[in-house]
Amino acid sequence: MTVDELDPLIHVPARLRVVATLAALPDGDTLSFTRLQDMIGLTPGNLITHLRKLEDAGYVGVEKIGSGVASRTSVALTILGRAAFTSYSAALRDLLTGPTPPND
Amino acid sequence: MTVDELDPLIHVPARLRVVATLAALPDGDTLSFTRLQDMIGLTPGNLITHLRKLEDAGYVGVEKIGSGVASRTSVALTILGRAAFTSYSAALRDLLTGPTPPND
Repeated sequence: MTVDELDPLIHVPARLRVVATLAALPDGDTLSFTRLQDMIGLTPGNLITHLRKLEDAGYVGVEKIGSGVASRTSVALTILGRAAFTSYSAALRDLLTGPTPPND
Repeated sequence: MTVDELDPLIHVPARLRVVATLAALPDGDTLSFTRLQDMIGLTPGNLITHLRKLEDAGYVGVEKIGSGVASRTSVALTILGRAAFTSYSAALRDLLTGPTPPND
């Protein structure tokens, strides 16, 4: 097991929080940008930056619906993003329990 | 809940692995530097750097016993380090399960 196993894209605390929040939604559900921001407590600029990185990796889908004051930006985890979070969580849980110490 | 809750000293993957490995030892047990290095797969220089940071924070105790070829460096988690890892793990487990989505 190497130290590189934890997906660095997800390991950054702010992005981990974004991904975990989206992963907790029922399949197919989305969150509005504003609601996600409220839940996570990031500034809009910060959240946009992190979402863009996750979107570039194909982990998150961001969709703008409507225009002007009636517009709403919805955010959801993609299938790839959900799979990445699942393996990240499993790797982390393994790591937290620690390896079996050798007998010496 | 803010994004700053995860102890940044422990969150770095290499240090997380060091701390988790030491936390898995029975209370009072130590690991030799060499054995720890084998288990974690870091270069000696890298491991020394990370151990120094953890030692400076009071999370890890490093003790050199003997001298010359017979010397052995033993590494263990301090009480403070164990407490820090426990709260880090709890924060992380909470985070992995995600918040309850609001009704809106």
